[in-house]
Amino acid sequence: MLNDVKHIFKLDPAKEISDEELEELAESKTDLIVVGGTDNVTEDNVLDLLARVRRYSVPLALELSNTHSVIGGFDHYFIPVVFNTTNMKYHNGLLVEALNEYHEIIDYDEVSILPYIILNEDCKAFKKAECYLPDNETLTSLVTMIDQLYKSEYIYIECSGKLISVEQLKSISELVNNSHLIYGGGIKTREEFKERKPYAETLVVGNSIYSDFKHALKTTNEVE
Amino acid sequence: MLNDVKHIFKLDPAKEISDEELEELAESKTDLIVVGGTDNVTEDNVLDLLARVRRYSVPLALELSNTHSVIGGFDHYFIPVVFNTTNMKYHNGLLVEALNEYHEIIDYDEVSILPYIILNEDCKAFKKAECYLPDNETLTSLVTMIDQLYKSEYIYIECSGKLISVEQLKSISELVNNSHLIYGGGIKTREEFKERKPYAETLVVGNSIYSDFKHALKTTNEVE
Repeated sequence: MLNDVKHIFKLDPAKEISDEELEELAESKTDLIVVGGTDNVTEDNVLDLLARVRRYSVPLALELSNTHSVIGGFDHYFIPVVFNTTNMKYHNGLLVEALNEYHEIIDYDEVSILPYIILNEDCKAFKKAECYLPDNETLTSLVTMIDQLYKSEYIYIECSGKLISVEQLKSISELVNNSHLIYGGGIKTREEFKERKPYAETLVVGNSIYSDFKHALKTTNEVE
Repeated sequence: MLNDVKHIFKLDPAKEISDEELEELAESKTDLIVVGGTDNVTEDNVLDLLARVRRYSVPLALELSNTHSVIGGFDHYFIPVVFNTTNMKYHNGLLVEALNEYHEIIDYDEVSILPYIILNEDCKAFKKAECYLPDNETLTSLVTMIDQLYKSEYIYIECSGKLISVEQLKSISELVNNSHLIYGGGIKTREEFKERKPYAETLVVGNSIYSDFKHALKTTNEVE
């Protein structure tokens, strides 16, 4: 699904965005729009974004936050599985519960898990998923385990709201051999996107859509 | 590693076996000998089995029980990752700690993780790994998650000491599309092996080596 996806705009269904801004995002050079958030994600606000983005030809995926906002009609579904959590519930636990309810109607070709490592202690997802902050050695082990032992299709480094240094992203990328590396968190400008572009297959621009729309939009100028 | 492995003898380093019996196992039609146990696995007793089995040409693998009994010289290394545990420690936790210590010297081509679902509440591994017994629906979800979402190379159904019914193994095998299904637990006779053979790529004969050697040995007559 993400093979040629360099740039993602991630829209939070709990946040407001105007039709004009949505049109600019959808008609930009972004490769994919992903709908997903941490809090207050409901059937209604997901459905609203689905309907509004579907007017455009840009591919559209849903990242599942909970089981009561799962809606058909997206091109693909991503399920986050947090690897640096202390609680099985936020690793596979909620996923197993969701499968109990939905596994008979799921088309698994349209669904991928995203192994998450969340590195920003101050973000909501970190606290909600009862994460621990890995030291450098443990981070290396987590990445290596996902990449070399699970041979996961994807690995997602999430710094939600906080920009990772180019050096740290580079050192993570050097550990990855099998998995497609996705980075998200704190990218606000074209320059920040450009600097990190060599070190992740996919970069996600999210929060800055809501805090500094013009600069967020300009990150797509780095897409070939 | 397990592509053409129909039959495994699993030797517990904490249990005694005579040279004569070891020779009969090693020169039987078994495809692989795996060294692995739950309690009292030490560097000494693993090394002892390694040296004694290495006289024969049968392939030999180590299933890691802890970090202080990891020894070079095996053809392959398996790392159990328990999926029906309530505690991250027994899922990825111990593995991450082990990687902190060893990841720089590991040849990942020689190492595979084995996603375990342990279904016998009375066995030592179940208690030690703080497992829960999944109901049928949750078992289906666990198997489906490992097979369709993790797209794991292997899935290991472990009933240690308790024989699974042919019907249950059949219904599990029908859920599996991508992963190589391994079953272990309670197989004591050739007939029990034969009945389950169509429903798992690999069947493991373990405890019965120590309780009823002659019948355990005869299970290899089912290997083509």
